[in-house]
Amino acid sequence: MGKNLTSRAEDYSKWYNELVVKADLAENSAVRGCMVIKPYGYAIWEKMQTELDRMFKETGHQNAYFPLFVPKSLFEAEEKNAEGFAKECAIVTHYRLENDPDKEGKLRVDPNAKLEEELIVRPTSEAIIWNTYKGWIQSYRDLPLLINQWANVVRWEMRTRLFLRTAEFLWQEGHTAHETRQEALDEAELMNNVYADFAENFMAIPVIKGVKTESERFAGAEETFCIEALMQDGKALQAGTSHFLGQNFAKAFDVKFTSKEGKQDYVWATSWGVSTRLMGALIMTHSDDSGLVLPPNLAPFQVVIVPIYKTDEQLESIRELAKGLMADFRNKGISVKLDDRTTHRPGAKFAEHELKGVPLRIAIGPKDMENGTVELARRDTFEKISVAVEDITGTVESLLTEMQEMLFNKALDFRNAHVTEVNDFEEFKKVLETKTGFISAHWDGTAETENKIKELTKATIRCIPMDAKEESGKCIYTGNPSNKRVLFAKAY
Amino acid sequence: MGKNLTSRAEDYSKWYNELVVKADLAENSAVRGCMVIKPYGYAIWEKMQTELDRMFKETGHQNAYFPLFVPKSLFEAEEKNAEGFAKECAIVTHYRLENDPDKEGKLRVDPNAKLEEELIVRPTSEAIIWNTYKGWIQSYRDLPLLINQWANVVRWEMRTRLFLRTAEFLWQEGHTAHETRQEALDEAELMNNVYADFAENFMAIPVIKGVKTESERFAGAEETFCIEALMQDGKALQAGTSHFLGQNFAKAFDVKFTSKEGKQDYVWATSWGVSTRLMGALIMTHSDDSGLVLPPNLAPFQVVIVPIYKTDEQLESIRELAKGLMADFRNKGISVKLDDRTTHRPGAKFAEHELKGVPLRIAIGPKDMENGTVELARRDTFEKISVAVEDITGTVESLLTEMQEMLFNKALDFRNAHVTEVNDFEEFKKVLETKTGFISAHWDGTAETENKIKELTKATIRCIPMDAKEESGKCIYTGNPSNKRVLFAKAY
Repeated sequence: MGKNLTSRAEDYSKWYNELVVKADLAENSAVRGCMVIKPYGYAIWEKMQTELDRMFKETGHQNAYFPLFVPKSLFEAEEKNAEGFAKECAIVTHYRLENDPDKEGKLRVDPNAKLEEELIVRPTSEAIIWNTYKGWIQSYRDLPLLINQWANVVRWEMRTRLFLRTAEFLWQEGHTAHETRQEALDEAELMNNVYADFAENFMAIPVIKGVKTESERFAGAEETFCIEALMQDGKALQAGTSHFLGQNFAKAFDVKFTSKEGKQDYVWATSWGVSTRLMGALIMTHSDDSGLVLPPNLAPFQVVIVPIYKTDEQLESIRELAKGLMADFRNKGISVKLDDRTTHRPGAKFAEHELKGVPLRIAIGPKDMENGTVELARRDTFEKISVAVEDITGTVESLLTEMQEMLFNKALDFRNAHVTEVNDFEEFKKVLETKTGFISAHWDGTAETENKIKELTKATIRCIPMDAKEESGKCIYTGNPSNKRVLFAKAY
Repeated sequence: MGKNLTSRAEDYSKWYNELVVKADLAENSAVRGCMVIKPYGYAIWEKMQTELDRMFKETGHQNAYFPLFVPKSLFEAEEKNAEGFAKECAIVTHYRLENDPDKEGKLRVDPNAKLEEELIVRPTSEAIIWNTYKGWIQSYRDLPLLINQWANVVRWEMRTRLFLRTAEFLWQEGHTAHETRQEALDEAELMNNVYADFAENFMAIPVIKGVKTESERFAGAEETFCIEALMQDGKALQAGTSHFLGQNFAKAFDVKFTSKEGKQDYVWATSWGVSTRLMGALIMTHSDDSGLVLPPNLAPFQVVIVPIYKTDEQLESIRELAKGLMADFRNKGISVKLDDRTTHRPGAKFAEHELKGVPLRIAIGPKDMENGTVELARRDTFEKISVAVEDITGTVESLLTEMQEMLFNKALDFRNAHVTEVNDFEEFKKVLETKTGFISAHWDGTAETENKIKELTKATIRCIPMDAKEESGKCIYTGNPSNKRVLFAKAY
């Protein structure tokens, strides 16, 4: 199966599309731009959800659920936000179908069932949530309000790609309310740090933390924190964003609180989200020409056991051994699957698990049974070793830890090798076209220059890194003064 | 706070509505018929999800995710199903808003952004899923296909009530495909049993397992299994359904498989679901005039600790003790919360936790600190006892088990006392109006009689119980022969 995959060198984009489908992660549906997330892909997403949800709860957040629909009058209340999403939203206008008198057995929209007010399928939930918060917040005692929601959202994108850009996607969106500007700013940065922690320690994806320029900010935000990752083709991918919303939504929805001192003020807000887009980042960071490569911390199962047998007796005795090993693995918190399907041959199973990125494969054949060994194969390096049965649990445990680290370090080396300091525009264009990756360069701070560079090169400012040093320099495009470098890249 | 709740005797329906809002479970939103599930309510739903999800996975099911939208042409493919939902569905007709030239700062639907084909917001996902399964199923090797999805669905109901009937609700929907009729029938019954197990052992709600009559079946099903519960007001509530769909969807979407013997046949289907409606059942089964009563197995926290103090030193020493107790509880798998808010007085906290149904409350005051005791109060019986600190973990552990059982038994006694065998129609009407509950009666098996009884009394056949005895009798309405009793009731 791996053999049928287009190679990255040949056509990176085609490789990605094929991999997503062939590894059973997702596929396009009958609805334009909407994907079906297949069980194996969804199992990875569930692992992501579990970890993120734990991290949100550990930082004091609670889950809740708000309506799918936003009445148009609420949608338009915060003008910048509305403007940012109005061009790409699904709109419900009717609530009933009727039999089509002209076509037997067909239905049509009932013209008498028109809604008085159109409903927007949420592209993001600030409007409906802040309209609700109005009823929940009266006093400082009600603050901070730290809420997250796991939900589907819809943005009617014209060009879609599985996981990376789809009309409907799954995400979590945090929406918090605070007494002070500083507290809200701290929350927004905290959640960006949580995202970075998750990306690095679970997804094994190194990220750069930064803030967006004004033109790249979320519609309605005063500051957007983000984490930026680098894919193997040298393009950047925004993996998560956390917004400081100031008092914009509180003002649009009139959400005020009485302080301890008895004063009335608008509350301060944040919102932050990551989505099934992370699946795209995960795939593009680690996978190779043989298929998916998964960091052990997010693999639906970390080990697969494949019996090699000729007779039913051999299969039975291998199954017996496997069951003992599985119990040992599970005791150590290692997830394992026995692939004893009799409908598929071992070669086909090997190819399938390779394509699906199972970190470790254990093959057990009659020879192994005699020798008291198993064959252990790593997905990342394709290395195979023979391991004594009594050592297998320990070996697997330490290999999984090692593989998680190695994947991160490999991605980090690649990323670090692809951050290039550049000091003039000719070099900028050259690096962008040849070496690719992030370009660290001076910029004069104006949206005009940013747009001009984007127009000329398709590169955007991915972020102003949190750790950018103060350094006087000249904008690569205008030569105007600049006091820190920002990161440019072509991006997904 | 409990004092402000309308009593059940006074107005059961009002009691329910008030309780849902005051116990912070859910509230109505700005979108007609759609609810906001508040953090405390959502935490209960999450506990339900966790248990159900485990049970689904233990029976071999995997999760996946399918699109929110169903194109009209797919929606209408299975005619009965389409007919059943066409009258109450939200329809997306446009994909863009534009500035309203007549109203500064307002938006309107862009008439140039009309979809070629309308999209139905899924009221249930058979259509979109079976259209997808067509590509997944070729051979017996691909079967059984056992998939579940956690999702939101929309049914444009005209009369809505929080949790019980809302335009948007959250649910899970299982959709499976099988080689044989029998295997699909077994699956449908298995999942109905899983629901019954969950209802009884986690929700502490006794249920009657049965099948629906033809007129009460799911649109497009050949058999609908269900679990029926009885609420405190004597009305029944359908808590879960599991459908044997025959080959209806396979035929509508042309899903065939090649058998081991090389023959082609349509596959056999099931679908099954439970929704946030279960929250309504949970509330109405156990709660009382003081508020929510939660079975310990589903309480977001099972124990709350409230410090009683005058000075900061007292609070500090109580906090110290509480922290030790909390660690002990958590070691035993007991969830606990310390309510040490300094913004609220103990009395207010007591009332709040009573209203929210926290199973056990521990109060610790300076006297307790001196005596080495704590005060333990049960939510179900309001009983208070003084317990020595060294005994508290054990006492709490056994009380939680006892309370879970007692709630179930209390509900079971109530339910059993409200199943009345009736042999003529006058008695039927009398029991229905006075005693209420389930009425076990003979019925002639025709939809005509069923409808007539419904028209005259508002009672419907809730189910034909799985364990109904063969017994010859006469239909209470027509006097025609019948060979088993069925259960009638007024229902939510």
